[in-house]
Amino acid sequence: MQTGTQLTLRQRLQHVIDNKTKPPGALGRLEEIALQTGLIQGTIHPQLNRPYIVVFAGDHGIAGAGLVNPYPQAVTAQMVLNFITGGAAINVFCRLHHIGLCVVDAGVNFDFDEQLFPGKLVSKKIGYGTRNYLETAAMTIEEAERAIAAGRQVVTDLYASGCNCVGFGEMGIGNTSSASLIMSYVTGMPVEECVGRGTGTNDEQLSKKTDVLREVFRRHLPAIAANPGAMTILSHVGGFEIAMMTGAYLKAAELRMIVVVDGFISTAALLLARLIKSDVQDFCFFAHASGERGHARMLDYLDADPLLDLGMRLGEGTGAAMAIPLLQSSVHFLREMASFESAGVSSASAQP
Amino acid sequence: MQTGTQLTLRQRLQHVIDNKTKPPGALGRLEEIALQTGLIQGTIHPQLNRPYIVVFAGDHGIAGAGLVNPYPQAVTAQMVLNFITGGAAINVFCRLHHIGLCVVDAGVNFDFDEQLFPGKLVSKKIGYGTRNYLETAAMTIEEAERAIAAGRQVVTDLYASGCNCVGFGEMGIGNTSSASLIMSYVTGMPVEECVGRGTGTNDEQLSKKTDVLREVFRRHLPAIAANPGAMTILSHVGGFEIAMMTGAYLKAAELRMIVVVDGFISTAALLLARLIKSDVQDFCFFAHASGERGHARMLDYLDADPLLDLGMRLGEGTGAAMAIPLLQSSVHFLREMASFESAGVSSASAQP
Repeated sequence: MQTGTQLTLRQRLQHVIDNKTKPPGALGRLEEIALQTGLIQGTIHPQLNRPYIVVFAGDHGIAGAGLVNPYPQAVTAQMVLNFITGGAAINVFCRLHHIGLCVVDAGVNFDFDEQLFPGKLVSKKIGYGTRNYLETAAMTIEEAERAIAAGRQVVTDLYASGCNCVGFGEMGIGNTSSASLIMSYVTGMPVEECVGRGTGTNDEQLSKKTDVLREVFRRHLPAIAANPGAMTILSHVGGFEIAMMTGAYLKAAELRMIVVVDGFISTAALLLARLIKSDVQDFCFFAHASGERGHARMLDYLDADPLLDLGMRLGEGTGAAMAIPLLQSSVHFLREMASFESAGVSSASAQP
Repeated sequence: MQTGTQLTLRQRLQHVIDNKTKPPGALGRLEEIALQTGLIQGTIHPQLNRPYIVVFAGDHGIAGAGLVNPYPQAVTAQMVLNFITGGAAINVFCRLHHIGLCVVDAGVNFDFDEQLFPGKLVSKKIGYGTRNYLETAAMTIEEAERAIAAGRQVVTDLYASGCNCVGFGEMGIGNTSSASLIMSYVTGMPVEECVGRGTGTNDEQLSKKTDVLREVFRRHLPAIAANPGAMTILSHVGGFEIAMMTGAYLKAAELRMIVVVDGFISTAALLLARLIKSDVQDFCFFAHASGERGHARMLDYLDADPLLDLGMRLGEGTGAAMAIPLLQSSVHFLREMASFESAGVSSASAQP
């Protein structure tokens, strides 16, 4: 450790980490997390306050045609009701791990009666699902902009309530297709490398899904090539929930919140957010490697090393929820562990 | 699902898992854990009650010579005091994740004054550290047997207090050497493939450590070959904490507890427990791939797929503590998630 000179925050954090009662580096990636969290929050005492998972839900015009998805479109609304009544996987994990849950109607094809469940659903509905991008653009630029603004607002409100750590999940039958197309446009990888089984297509359905998405890609390529960028991609092949999540990433990074990236669709939204603001990723922790095929390639593209690899591919933010206890472990060891000095433990150099 | 016939527990568990509101398999390894936990507990409603980490601490004669370890032997006792006063990593993680912590003096070279911290340390001291196995056997067969009996008693007592899930950690300067030797005798892999950096030896120290352990291996091989088995290996090159943990595994399996295996030393103790009772592993979940080099080969040998890979190599049960929230997530989704029927969600087959 330097003395007599001003230490950088990174040096001070590393010094604190290295002087905890453990061999240097022995907590592995938890030490990396502690360092990054401290750098984001600008302190050697970072903390995660009131962590939240936000689930953005939206419907997709393509799903109505049944060409890309084994589940009917109505499942999006049914699952939102399941979130509201507490029966979904993300509800279980949030309850267990003391994570708040915020469910947002970004554009579900259903009218929820909010009086039946006051405060349980944040309504930011842009429309009753996107248009079918086999025929036309999924949404207008103005709709994409409204969705992004709404996503920013959701994060602003959470932050105002005392939350400084947020993971983004989603629900939307058909949205792996949208994410695959976004991935292909942003990364330049061919559509077939970006398509996976989603919620469980079989071989035949996967082949059909790939053919359909290749056709969609070709159809929108001229417009996107003419005016490249996140807003064009979103309006042509995005989803309301993906657009809203894109805005949420942007605002969370502006507020220097700790951001937990979930799986395939959440990472696709991050690809778009990075196009708009390149430093967004600095605030991100990648929760897990999804079982969805294209996700590993996305993570490679982002040079991201996910914390978990449990073969999960559910969405809803469930991967992010599994990672938050690891993040909590990191900031807690940084705050609570004794140092060699405070505990009276000899360090390695004390060996004769 | 079969009807009209008696379903096995495995079929019933799989049916419950598959009818949760998610695509089949979408929770990945959490579904495997739920299934295995249900099979161990003999119910479709498994639960983890009062999970505990038990840290067995013991000293090693070899460590006094300073040939295999960068930290002085006194660190074992200093770290036990750190556990007692709540400043170690395992304390932080147990507090955070609502895990009980039980610290056992298996054979530390220090007299702890238990009146200073009543109830904080379980004294099962077999001796003031093992003998130096460069010169003689580490312990007598009778000491190994007493240690195993003490480990069984620790688990019996935890079980009686309402705990049905236990992870085993350890503290003992020099114990990666003991674990490497155990690994080599049990698996037949050459010593050099079983040796790693432990708490942080450099290249030169690692080379010296390997030479020393190769010599130790040769010295004790005739006696072990003449009377192969866990007790002989333990008495020649074991540690009191490793022997006690071996007994703890055996008792936990007898009681059909959920057992969480930590890292290199904990897995070495499991290698011995399996020699004594081959079905012990059926009750085990492998928490993580340790950063200690030999651990990956040990896991391969056991055909075990660890849940986490965070580059941790601290011991103390810290890897097990990180995995327990995942196990909790598994049993909670099995108990609490809605089914397609109960939530009114359409299944994949409802697609027209």
